[in-house]
Amino acid sequence: MSIKSMKDLFFHSLKDIYSAEKQIAKNLPKMAKAAGSAELRSAVEKHGQEADQQIERLETIFAQRDVAARPLRCEAMDGIISEAKDLMADVNDKFVRDAGMLSVAQAIKHYEISRYGTLIAWADQLGYQDASKLLREILVEEQATDQILSRIDVAAIDKKAA
Amino acid sequence: MSIKSMKDLFFHSLKDIYSAEKQIAKNLPKMAKAAGSAELRSAVEKHGQEADQQIERLETIFAQRDVAARPLRCEAMDGIISEAKDLMADVNDKFVRDAGMLSVAQAIKHYEISRYGTLIAWADQLGYQDASKLLREILVEEQATDQILSRIDVAAIDKKAA
Repeated sequence: MSIKSMKDLFFHSLKDIYSAEKQIAKNLPKMAKAAGSAELRSAVEKHGQEADQQIERLETIFAQRDVAARPLRCEAMDGIISEAKDLMADVNDKFVRDAGMLSVAQAIKHYEISRYGTLIAWADQLGYQDASKLLREILVEEQATDQILSRIDVAAIDKKAA
Repeated sequence: MSIKSMKDLFFHSLKDIYSAEKQIAKNLPKMAKAAGSAELRSAVEKHGQEADQQIERLETIFAQRDVAARPLRCEAMDGIISEAKDLMADVNDKFVRDAGMLSVAQAIKHYEISRYGTLIAWADQLGYQDASKLLREILVEEQATDQILSRIDVAAIDKKAA
């Protein structure tokens, strides 16, 4: 870590979320397959597909400032995804597994929303209007998916699991 | 991980956030000391002190159902706190460090808010009204601290850092 300026901090954080999006794109299709509820499966699939497009937008931001797009291992996302893998491997009851997976999907979204909020503030401060625009597009998508996850009939999943 | 029912999932998740709160209580006083801005220092101190009280409430919930209060290493929180430690160790410019630390504090809060939201839904589903009440008290505190963090004059911190 060699962070001397806000520009360094911005790209450090961008590399972190770039790594997180790559982990999401890689692992969410597996999570979707493991979902028992069709609604949850579809939301998790959408979330994974969006990550692919978001990775491209992040690569554009790196290119705009001639910074190498190198993922910086995001330990927080590693931790959340490792929990998802444990749930998929060890929980046999499909309703209990769905309840756990929905909770993990929401934790992933909240982490992303927090990080993109910060990145937008920093991009604005640094005068990176092109980057700010792309980051805002991503944030809007993240918030929409969070809303879809919130609308999933958790009560029905939980009721079957209880 | 041996999760067969919603009760198992609830206590698995409770042990995870119990571990997260212990990591927060241990590490946030160090983060507070490293803060350059008095406003940020005070918000981070408050956040750390609240964790101590929240740990007690979580222990009450374990006791109410005769479940051993054993922390289950929360890898997501490990990852976020490890990032905070790197920032404190490696970033010399105090304004840049503050901007990074504020972002980490917000990521911690968002993770907690997401997790407590889930735990409240599950406690309600399981009919654990006593637990639900305590978890709601914690969530209200978490949201209030998140508001305080959001009100910190980020623009001023970022401007000095830019």
